[in-house]
Order: sequence, then C-alpha cells, then structure tokens
Amino acid sequence: MFEGIFVPDDVRAAVSDAAWLQALLDAERALAAAEAQAGLISSDAAEAIAAACRAELYDAEELAAAGRAVGNPVEPLVRALGARAGDSGRYVHRGATSQDILDTAAMLVTRRALDPILAELARVAAACASLAEAHRSSVMPARTLLQHAVPTTFGAKAAGWLVAVCDARRRLVDLRAHGLAAQLGGAAGTLASLGEHGPEVLRLFAEELELAEPVVPWHTNRVRIAELGAALDLAAGVLAKIALDVALLAQTEVAEVAPAAGGGSSTMPHKRNPVGSALAGACARQVHAYASVLTGGLAQEHERGVGGWHAEWHALSGALAFTGGAAGATRQTLDSLEVDADRMRRNVDATDGAIMAERIALLLADRIGRREAHELVRTASAGERTLREELEASIEADELDAALDPETYLGSADVFVDRALAYYRETS
Amino acid sequence: MFEGIFVPDDVRAAVSDAAWLQALLDAERALAAAEAQAGLISSDAAEAIAAACRAELYDAEELAAAGRAVGNPVEPLVRALGARAGDSGRYVHRGATSQDILDTAAMLVTRRALDPILAELARVAAACASLAEAHRSSVMPARTLLQHAVPTTFGAKAAGWLVAVCDARRRLVDLRAHGLAAQLGGAAGTLASLGEHGPEVLRLFAEELELAEPVVPWHTNRVRIAELGAALDLAAGVLAKIALDVALLAQTEVAEVAPAAGGGSSTMPHKRNPVGSALAGACARQVHAYASVLTGGLAQEHERGVGGWHAEWHALSGALAFTGGAAGATRQTLDSLEVDADRMRRNVDATDGAIMAERIALLLADRIGRREAHELVRTASAGERTLREELEASIEADELDAALDPETYLGSADVFVDRALAYYRETS
Amino acid sequence: MFEGIFVPDDVRAAVSDAAWLQALLDAERALAAAEAQAGLISSDAAEAIAAACRAELYDAEELAAAGRAVGNPVEPLVRALGARAGDSGRYVHRGATSQDILDTAAMLVTRRALDPILAELARVAAACASLAEAHRSSVMPARTLLQHAVPTTFGAKAAGWLVAVCDARRRLVDLRAHGLAAQLGGAAGTLASLGEHGPEVLRLFAEELELAEPVVPWHTNRVRIAELGAALDLAAGVLAKIALDVALLAQTEVAEVAPAAGGGSSTMPHKRNPVGSALAGACARQVHAYASVLTGGLAQEHERGVGGWHAEWHALSGALAFTGGAAGATRQTLDSLEVDADRMRRNVDATDGAIMAERIALLLADRIGRREAHELVRTASAGERTLREELEASIEADELDAALDPETYLGSADVFVDRALAYYRETS
Amino acid sequence: MFEGIFVPDDVRAAVSDAAWLQALLDAERALAAAEAQAGLISSDAAEAIAAACRAELYDAEELAAAGRAVGNPVEPLVRALGARAGDSGRYVHRGATSQDILDTAAMLVTRRALDPILAELARVAAACASLAEAHRSSVMPARTLLQHAVPTTFGAKAAGWLVAVCDARRRLVDLRAHGLAAQLGGAAGTLASLGEHGPEVLRLFAEELELAEPVVPWHTNRVRIAELGAALDLAAGVLAKIALDVALLAQTEVAEVAPAAGGGSSTMPHKRNPVGSALAGACARQVHAYASVLTGGLAQEHERGVGGWHAEWHALSGALAFTGGAAGATRQTLDSLEVDADRMRRNVDATDGAIMAERIALLLADRIGRREAHELVRTASAGERTLREELEASIEADELDAALDPETYLGSADVFVDRALAYYRETS
Repeated sequence: MFEGIFVPDDVRAAVSDAAWLQALLDAERALAAAEAQAGLISSDAAEAIAAACRAELYDAEELAAAGRAVGNPVEPLVRALGARAGDSGRYVHRGATSQDILDTAAMLVTRRALDPILAELARVAAACASLAEAHRSSVMPARTLLQHAVPTTFGAKAAGWLVAVCDARRRLVDLRAHGLAAQLGGAAGTLASLGEHGPEVLRLFAEELELAEPVVPWHTNRVRIAELGAALDLAAGVLAKIALDVALLAQTEVAEVAPAAGGGSSTMPHKRNPVGSALAGACARQVHAYASVLTGGLAQEHERGVGGWHAEWHALSGALAFTGGAAGATRQTLDSLEVDADRMRRNVDATDGAIMAERIALLLADRIGRREAHELVRTASAGERTLREELEASIEADELDAALDPETYLGSADVFVDRALAYYRETS
Repeated sequence: MFEGIFVPDDVRAAVSDAAWLQALLDAERALAAAEAQAGLISSDAAEAIAAACRAELYDAEELAAAGRAVGNPVEPLVRALGARAGDSGRYVHRGATSQDILDTAAMLVTRRALDPILAELARVAAACASLAEAHRSSVMPARTLLQHAVPTTFGAKAAGWLVAVCDARRRLVDLRAHGLAAQLGGAAGTLASLGEHGPEVLRLFAEELELAEPVVPWHTNRVRIAELGAALDLAAGVLAKIALDVALLAQTEVAEVAPAAGGGSSTMPHKRNPVGSALAGACARQVHAYASVLTGGLAQEHERGVGGWHAEWHALSGALAFTGGAAGATRQTLDSLEVDADRMRRNVDATDGAIMAERIALLLADRIGRREAHELVRTASAGERTLREELEASIEADELDAALDPETYLGSADVFVDRALAYYRETS
Repeated sequence: MFEGIFVPDDVRAAVSDAAWLQALLDAERALAAAEAQAGLISSDAAEAIAAACRAELYDAEELAAAGRAVGNPVEPLVRALGARAGDSGRYVHRGATSQDILDTAAMLVTRRALDPILAELARVAAACASLAEAHRSSVMPARTLLQHAVPTTFGAKAAGWLVAVCDARRRLVDLRAHGLAAQLGGAAGTLASLGEHGPEVLRLFAEELELAEPVVPWHTNRVRIAELGAALDLAAGVLAKIALDVALLAQTEVAEVAPAAGGGSSTMPHKRNPVGSALAGACARQVHAYASVLTGGLAQEHERGVGGWHAEWHALSGALAFTGGAAGATRQTLDSLEVDADRMRRNVDATDGAIMAERIALLLADRIGRREAHELVRTASAGERTLREELEASIEADELDAALDPETYLGSADVFVDRALAYYRETS
Repeated sequence: MFEGIFVPDDVRAAVSDAAWLQALLDAERALAAAEAQAGLISSDAAEAIAAACRAELYDAEELAAAGRAVGNPVEPLVRALGARAGDSGRYVHRGATSQDILDTAAMLVTRRALDPILAELARVAAACASLAEAHRSSVMPARTLLQHAVPTTFGAKAAGWLVAVCDARRRLVDLRAHGLAAQLGGAAGTLASLGEHGPEVLRLFAEELELAEPVVPWHTNRVRIAELGAALDLAAGVLAKIALDVALLAQTEVAEVAPAAGGGSSTMPHKRNPVGSALAGACARQVHAYASVLTGGLAQEHERGVGGWHAEWHALSGALAFTGGAAGATRQTLDSLEVDADRMRRNVDATDGAIMAERIALLLADRIGRREAHELVRTASAGERTLREELEASIEADELDAALDPETYLGSADVFVDRALAYYRETS
C-alpha cells in the first residue's frame, strides 16, 4: 500500500518480482547463448533454454519459498528451468554459480529501472530549466539560515536546483553506461568448470547482455553496487533539496509558490499541502537507508559473503524504487507549481529595506569604516523604525532610494542563470 | 520474492497491506465506539461504522493510488468507509486527522507483529538456554580477534548469547507493554473539533484499543517510533551476533558446529552453507537501515512533518518484517544445529598447549617476573617446537601436565552459565 | 576547532583524553582494591597502585603511539602503571584483559559525561515548562506540512516539546542508573586466571565503582553500548526537533520568535541567525552517525570483536560530546528566546479566517452535508475574496463572527499544557 | 588518544586545526589576490593581507570560542585577520560570505589530506599486486559463505583485492582532479557586492587556488561534498574487505597468513592478533558514519542550510582522517604479512577431496545425469568415509586421481591475475 503511494507504477514494475525473475532468466538465457557461441553446448540446447526463459512460466512466491532453504532464489529457479527445458535442461546454468546469475540480473534490473528514473530526472531538469529561464527577473528574497539575506531571483534559485540535478543525473548516466558489468566467476571466481573457455564465455556473456566485461569476477568486490547505491542516494538527496525548498516557499506566510491543488486535508478544506514535497522527502530518507546497506556492505567474506551479499537484493530494489518515487514526486511538483512572482517581490519589500543591509553597510563603510557601518546598520535594523527611516539622516534621499532598490542588487544572478542553462544543454 | 526468502509468513502477514488496512479500520471503529460512549454519536452509528470496518471490503491498491494525491491512504479510506457506512458515514473519522488513524494503526500493527517476533525470540532464548545447559562441559577455544585465547565452554558461549537475547527481548516486551500509545489530536493536536470532549474521547479511544493514553498528542514527538526502531535494531543485532558466531564455528577448518543439511550449493554438492546465518545477517542489515530512518526522523516540522512522518510507515513495516526474519532464521539455525563437542576439544588441543599460554605465563611470573615470563612464553609459542617442548626445561613434568590441562582452566565458566540461566528464568 | 564550536567545555572535558585516561586508571585502581578485599593481593599493593592511578602522570599521545601496535591504549598504560607502582607493579591488571579496563572506563566516562548532559536537558525541560506555562494563552497558528492548519497556543507547542524532552531524558536517566555495568571477564570471559575468586572479584570491582554487576561478562554482548547510543540519538533528535521549530518560527516572514542577538552574519548586519538551531541540528546529525556505529556494531566475533569493538571508543565519545552540544545549543536558544505573542496572533489573522476552515466546514456539514461543506469551504478558501466574504451569504454575521474566532477554537490545548506540566513534575 | 591510535600522523596533521586554519587563510589570501588582479583592490592591500595569512598567527581555540556565537569560525577569523592586516584590513573578505571561505577551505583540506591517503592506497595496491604476482601458484581453498568451495590461488584472491583498490582509488583520484571547486557566491549566491565583477573574481579566485570553477555557487548544492563522502566510504570499505579477509585467513585453525608480530595481548603471550585488521575495520565503520552525514545532508534549506551545512565540517574531517587510518592499517598489514603457502595447500587437502566435489559431480553428471551425480557426491561428502573412498567404486583410480588434483582445477585463476595486473598498470 505504501509503495503504491510513493513509487510510480513504471518504476515499481521495473523492480517487481516479475522483473527480477525475467532478469534472472535473461542471465541464464545469455549464458546458454554464450556457451553455444563458444561451442560448449549446441545451438539447439541454447534455443530450447531460451524458449523456457520467460518469467510468466514461473511462480515467484514458490521460488521464494523454495529459496529460503538455500538462501537465494536462483537454485530453485535453475531446477525449474532445467525441468522446463527438457533434454536441454542439463545445459542450463553451466559453469555458473547462483551469484553469477543474481548479480547479473541485478545489473539488468538496475539498467531497466534507471530508464524511467533517468527520464523523470530529465523532466525535473527540464522543469528547473524552464523556471530558471522564466523567472530570471522574478526578484525574491534569498534566505540563509531561513532568514532574509539579500535579494536574488527565482531564476537563480531554479538554476541552482538545475545544476544539482544535472550533476546527480550525470553520475547515474555514467554508471548506467559504464558501471554495469556482467558477473561470471563460477563456484568461486575461477570459472574452473569451464576449463580454458572461461574468459571467452565471460566475454560472450557480457556482449550478449550488453553489459561491461569485468576485469575479474566481482563476487566480493562490491564497488559497483556501492557506487550505484551512492549515486541513487545522491539523486534522491538532490530531489529532496528541491522538494524542501518548495515546501518552505509554499508556507502560508511565505506563499511564493503553491503546489498543485489536490493535496487537501481530510478535515481542513483550505489546505494545499505540499504533498509532493512530503513524498519526495520521505522517499529520499528510504533511499539513504537502502544506500547505506549497499555502501556498508563492502567488507564481504572471502569469495562470497555471509549475509552482506544477501542484503543487497532488497536494498538495491528499494533504492531504485524510492529514487523513482522521489523523482516522480518532484517532477509532478515542479510541473504543476504555481509561482507567485508578485508575492516574491512583496516579500522582498516586507522588511522595509532590511534585506538591503549588506549594500547599505558597504556604502557606509567607505565613509565611516567597516565596523562602524556594520554596527550602525545592525542597530538600525533592530530598531522600531525602518532601516530607511534610520538612515535618512546619514544618506541623501536619492542615494538611499538607489541603494534600497533590490532590482539593482542582483549581482551575477542573471549570469549564473545563463551558465546553468548552458551546463544543462551540455550535459543532457 | 526477496521478502518471501527473508521474512517468515506470519510476520509478513502481520505487516501486509491487509494488516495495515485492518489496523486503520480498527482505529476508525474504536474512534466511533469511543465517541458513542462519550455520547457524541449514537451507538447505532458506531455499530454501523464497525460493521464496515473489515479490511476485505476495501482494495489496498486502489486506496494507494487514490492516496498518492493526498500523500496518505487514510483520506481515501475515510471516504470509502463513509460511503459504506451509509447514513452513519457522516460520523466516521469525527474529530480525527489522518495522522491520528495512521499512527494508531502503526501501534496496532506493531503490537500484532511483535507477537510472532517475540515468540521467535523466546524460542531463540530457549535454544540458547538448552545449549548452555547441555554444553557446560564442552570445552572449546575462546577466540579473541579470531585467535585462540584461552579455553572456554560452548555452554559459556551460549550463555553469553542467552543474556543478550534476554536483554533485547525484554526491551521489546517493555515497549509492547508500555510504549504503544493511541494517537488522537485532531487537525493539529488540540482536538478542537471535539470541543470539551477531547480528553474523554482520547481516554476512551485508548481504552478501546488497549493502548496507552499519551500525555499529549504526539504527532511530532516521535520518541516512541524512534524507540521502537532502536529496539528492533537491537534485537536484530543480537541475533546477527549469534548467526555470525555460528557461521564462524561452522567454517570448514573449525567445524565445531554444522548447520542443518539443506543449505546446499547449486554446483557444489559437498557444501553445507550456514544459510540461516546469511539470512539473519542480511535481515539485521535491513533492520539497521530501517531503524535509522525511524531514529533519524525525530526532527519533524511544527505540528506535522513534511516527509519525516511519511517515511516512517514503510520503515516501521520493514523493521518489523526483517527483525522477524532475523529471529526466524536464527531460531531455525539453533534448533537444527549439530554441535561437535569432540571437535571443539580437538581444536583446543590443536596448538599443542599454546592456548594455555596465559596460565603458563602466570605460573612462571611468580618465579622469573612477569615481563620475563611473558617474553619466554611468547618466544616459546612462536617457535618450531611446541610450547610443551619449550617449557620442559623450566617446569616439572607433572606441574606442566597440570598447567596445560584446559579442563582445569575454565575459571567461572560454569558459574556464568548458572547466572545466565537464572537470568533467563527471571526475565522470561 | 569545530568541537570547540559545537561542544560545551564541560562535556568536552568529560570525554577528553584526560578523562578517558583517568577512567582507565580508575578501573585499574578499583580492580586492585577489589582484589585486596578478596585477599588476592595485599592492601599495601592496592594502595601503591592507587597512588599511581592519576591521569596527570601519563601522556595520552605517547600511550596512543604505543597503543597503535597492539590496537588499544590499555596495554601500554598497564606497562607504564606497573612501572610506576614499583614493587606492587606486578599486581596491576591482575586477571583482567584490556577490554575489561576499556569497557569499564567507557562506563565511567559515560556516567561522568551524562552529568552535564542531563543537567542541560533538565534546563531545556525547565525552559519548555516555563514557555508552556507563560504562553498558555498565546494563540498562534498550528502548522501541518508547513501550512496553517488550525489555531493552537505556543503553550501547547512548548508542552509538546516538554513531553519529548522528558521522555528522552528519562531514558538516559534510566540507563545511567541501571545500564552502566562493570566489565570483568579476563582473557576471554571466564576469569580463569582468578581461579575460583572470579565472581567475588567481579562483585567487589563493580561495587567499588558503583557500577552494576553484569550477569556475565559482556565482551561481545554490546546491548548496553547500543542502548546508550540509541538513547543519546533520541535525546539529540528531540533537541533537534525543538531547534528546527525555533528556526522555522524565526523565519523573516513568520517572526514569531527571535533568537538571541549575536547570531550575526559577517556581511549582513540585519540578520539574527538562529545559530543555536543550526548548531543543535548539526550536533544531532553527528550523534545519529555515531549512534549508528554503536547500534550497528552488535555482531562482534566470538569472544572479542575484530574492529567492531575498537570502533566504539571514538563513536561513544563523539555521541556523548555532540549530544551535549545539542543540549547546550538548545538550552541557550530557549533561555534567550524572544517570543512575540502579538505577531503569533497577527499570523493567525493573516489569512482572514482560512485557518478556521475546519470549524466552518463542520458547522456547514450539519446543514448541507459533509462533502458539500468541505467543497464549499475549499472553494471559498481558494478564491480571491476572503473566507468571511465568501461565507457571508451562507452564515449569519454573529454566528460567522463566533465561528471565525480562534480564541474559542483551541480545544484541549490548555488541558494538554496541564498534562504536560504534571508529567514534567512527575518525571523530573 | 583514540585518533592517535587509528589515524596516521600525516593524515591527522592534514585535517588538524592548524591545517583548517591555514586553508581558511589561504582562501582569504586568494580572494584578495583575485580582487587585486581584477583591479578591485590594490596589489599592496593583497600583499598585506597575504602576509597576515599564516596560521601560526592565530589561535584555533580562541576562534572556536568566539565562533560559537555566530556558528562558524570564519567570522572571528576575518576580524582577527582584518586587525592584523592593518590599513589593508578593510579589504579582507570583500564580497565573500563565511561559507565561501569555509567551503573553499574544505576543498583545500580535502586535496591536501588526499595526498597521503592516495599515497597509502597506492602502496596498498602495490602490495596487492606483489602478492598477486608472487602467489599465482599458491593453491588455497576458495571459500564461499565461509565454507570451502573449490580451489583457487592466493594470487587470484589478491588480484580481486587489487581490482577493488584500483576502482576505489580511481574514484578518489577523479574527484581530487575534477571534483574540488572553489566556492564564491557572496551573501547568498549572487555575488551582488562585487557588482559586475563577480564572475571574473570567481574565475581568478579558482585559478589562484587551482580549484575548479563551479558553474554557479554551490552553497546548497552539496553534490560534491556528498560525492567525496561516498568515495571515501568506498575506499574505506574496500580496505575493510582486505582487512577482514586477512583476519579470517589468520585464524588459528586456518593459519594461512600471519600478521606482523607485535599485535600481542596484554595477558596471552602466544597471540598474534590481526591488529591492523581490527584498526582498518574500526576506521571503516567511522568513515561509513561520517559519510552518511555527508550524503544525508543534501537537502539544505534555500541559500544556506540550518545545521546541515554545519554538520559537514567535522564529518568531512573525520571521513578523511579515518580513511587515512584504514589505508595505513591495511598497508602495514599487507607489507608485513607472512603468507604460508604450504599451509594453504594443506588446507586444500584437509577435507580429503571434498573441495573437488564440483568437478567430480560434473564428471559423473555426464554418466549418470546431473541430479543423480549431485546427490551421489552430496551423500559421499557427508559420510564417514572420504570422498575418494566413496567414489572408488564409481571411477577408475587414475581418473579419480586426476579429478581430485586441485592444481588442475584452477580454471582462469591465472588469467584473472594477469588481467588484474594489467588493470593496475593502466589505472595507476
């Protein structure tokens, strides 16, 4: 029930039992195909095996029940597949160990799940880019430690989101392209039962699945699993940052953005809850936890871990699922976001000039010294009267007007928007 | 598929969609019952609502899909329940907010899932107690930093496991008895829409469900959720310790215990893998991650969190499920454990007396000084000849025989077994 | 440099090298004293050892350098202490292993560091209680998902903080009283070298240090370490919740509270940053990480862990230090908090009645049905006109005035303040 | 005291207060230099500032104490530096915010600390490469789930370690070269106070420090911090894997390797504890925790986080320090490792052929069918008699001898050693 709330249907499907089952079978099919190419088994056998490698022929629950005794689902699947493949059944799984199949399947599941995730991330980036372009001139308060700092633009803010999304997405794109490798080491990483054909079968197996060929079997070198976990965590964290900012901007008192209508409360009809922000934030917390299982599992014993390996399957599935959830929720949030540029500007003005304190202090510093200027502005900002009123004695009216104009104190905001958009175009 | 491998069926059922749905409905039913008792709604209405509070009348997937827009499954469930309850539908959910129902349901799910978990933990404790009693006299090497240290008994080792299991179980028992509280605060913790009846309804609601009545609503005081997470993590960690020791004792070269036959390899017929250890260890890693979501989510915003709360549902379910998995796997491992006391004893003897180095050094210290004795024994242990051979010059044969006898160097091992068993009887 | 910013001086001192060194020496001293009482060594020897058990006689850096080779600081300390104790030096550390001393010292360090931590937590609780009492009638917006929900009082909000602090503090108080145990197991948990005197020495040793006597040695039963970690995490998390709420309330647009002046910016003179909130939040993140080392280290090998144990020392020190940091920062924040009750009230009114939507919807529900009422209020809240304007057609002016009065829609806020204060008095 | 045990002196120095202080000053110096180049301040002023940018002129403890009120050490440092720079003091920190200086300093500290870390990692890789080459022919049992699986070579095992170290090192090398960027955004990321000169100063500032120029300021885009955390976690995890394997191989019953003499016990003279393994494992646990602070802190509020940012400083220092610790301990362990190839071979033989079960089963499968063969070998392995004795009836003596020869069942072990060594040469 909860996964249905958090995880988009396409990502859920990509990490479902059916998807894992098919990926396991794809690995077995590819192994037979590679061995046929290498002349170790006949093409007929490979074809008979391929024909039996369809997930719908098997029952995941049954395999799980049978897998409990051996600690993985591959062993019962190999038996079931062997039975289905008739006379060719004896050529199933030749030279492989369960981990070869499971790790390779994990790579396939990852690649397939990354498709909808990367697509959503691309849409998130596109939404950020649109906002950055559209709101170049929407002046708003920049906030540090949740306090008004100086003016910025919503375009610059969205540009900051955009760069982070591009960074996180690029890492996942890189890992999808280069970080997914076939696993084939046999019983304990020597491919002994394939005799001298080991390396050839490994190469053909990897080619067949369009996965990278690893330098050596990686049964207990879990770098690529840990890197996947870290990269998913990164993506989810970047999405949570956007989601958090949206929730903060949507606060009743701030009201600079409004999430899509629909996030109602069961009892309070007036509310427009930032539901997408809540979902994305919740997803990111799950991803962080799952990623921690993956990055925390590098120290596996000898040639196959006792538990560390087993913990990866559920954690990798979960990390993919909830990264997809974070991406989906953030994308929906941004796509339906109502931006109130007028309110942004009113919020800039709401402190009657205090947001311009840095500029005023710099102006005065040239006249009365830095420390004195800082102190004067600090006192002025803290008083009953507005900063303008306090400063009228020290600064000419025209000069004060100019100094208090936020539109002329945006520095490089616009340049940074351009740079972010250029970076986006380069990296996407 | 993976949950089926790791999580026992009864625990899976206890945290399933159906279980959550029923718990949500139980909360709604109890709320109506409490309000009827308080005279806020009629008994007839409460009964009509109760009649509609059966999980099988609703579809979890549909609720999840509808719940995505509002960010939780309660709002659509309230609508569906209202519709089913006919004219009494308007009295459903009166005064409550979605979080009241979800948090209360979380308490019910936790209580129900703790039943099989605690039962398994009790069986694990019983198995440890049996081993402690049965193997009081099974002398084996104690190992520190994975090196032979001095002799101990397998009884003393199991006594150590036993105390840890009792500790961890007691914490869960305490929390089950005192740590599960009803949640009822209304829209934002004031129970405003119940007028002056708030506290009475809260009391009756808690009584109806046999949950503790909280001091105040705890919408963003997540101490009890964090404590549950920590306690489950504790239990799973203690189980993982036992599982790890079993796997280490079952190593081919050590062979002091053997896990149940059945943990075969798909390719290596001779293997008896410590499958239960792998499963328990993997489960403990998931629980640690889920618990981290729960303990890491204490800082929730104002009167309801943006994401921190939402992250708890999946994490709590998962922490319960995999703690159950760790308990089940460890229990099965211990129940079917073959202990080879002869091999234990042979392993003690395998270093020809080196395991008695502490005693010998103490013996010599009185004669030649502590540092000199330490150095003599260190050198002797490192040489080609056995410790006995090295020492024959320095110590009389009879005395050396006595000093090298592990049976007489077990210290308080037996006393500790007694103390652990007494503690077990007290706390269970 | 960073520790100096985050951790109060008294807590830093309590977990400093000097504090650890003294605790290690206290354990050695107590061991000699216990053995003297048991008649194993002479009183003179015990006294000579005691005289040498002063931290200032030893150099922590030197011990650390020497400890690298053996993997802990106890072994070189025992050598140095033995040398200093002259003829009695040979009676130092009798029957103990390094872990006995280090674990016992960890308990002493914990107890000593908990003193200032618990004192700060008591002050935080007192500050919450004061705020709860003083602001019973300060009406403010309750906020769920960062949106205005219904009115509450700042008193009720502080009452919620108070209960959480009491809960977290009570757990630490419990563990301080009952969770700190002496460690004495000898080389591998059997106390073999003490012969039949093991249990007696253990009892006397524990008494000497006023620590609990454990059922059996707990060299690899790390439940109490994990529980300490979890309890510190709980406390830090509860403090971070308060700190977060303060930072949110202090936002420029919300301005319901202001942190102490002083949290200035290096460039923006107008700012009053919620520095205490930032520090407390940062501390809580460190504590969560350190606690994760402690709770994640339960599965230690056989009779002494290979690394899991070693990881605890730094993590426990850090968890204590930064919990103290979170407590100190939160206490300072609350003690100097400026509360603007007028602004709270103005914020309630700022949405022209929308915050009363729940009440209006309930009022209308009796007349036109629940769903219709919900829809009417939802539409009204979303429109250009205020809720009051929208409703003037449907509800009589007097009734509407009454319905829109937040002061009369506070439900049980005041009762909950009373309950929280009573709970505070009971538990402190 | 504990840091002295775990962290090598050079890495400790690289993350010490003095190192941070110098890095902060380097950032201020470079800022002034950049502004002089851009013509915003005079060269004389920049030189005067540079002259005052020496860490030894400042007191870290004092700065920390002063920094508590503002929540960071930069603000007091800027004041002290300004005072020291005399008339030029007013040009210090121009246009920058505290975070600009601290983030830039973090990059410098990281780069400097990575030097000894990468050097140690290179030595670890070199040691693995030596072992891989030297032990190509040292036949040993491969172990899966801690059970003998099939024969492998110690060379192949070391080759597996080597590839993981190369992978992890390469990631850190990449990040050192491309992932460290200057930070300069001014008060809130717009560089407003630098007027139109912002981008130019940013470029010159980055050049001056040889750091990458970021696309836009990254005050709350913490991707590079999270990636550093993840990469350090990766490296430490890979080292912990090696350390774990060494500890397992050094077990008394296995005895295939022995760590350096010196890891003695305080009471048991015979022990040679795998101290380096314990230290490396402990370090990796700390790094994992610190990394979790860094990867878990991506969601920072608006233009500067409230606590999330502040948590990074200590965590980044710690992650660097303990990664250095893991590298140092592992390097020392490998450099002084005694490998007992004879014992490896004896361990292969210790099960009287059971380790050859896969090959035998394959051999028989061609004759009697796969399942039957598997069952026959399984039963044979479990019986009283040796596998050879059981099989003498089924297989001719010569064939059986050949089949039971581990030297001829090493598959691609040697090829994989070559591939790993080639990969090492390519990537180092």
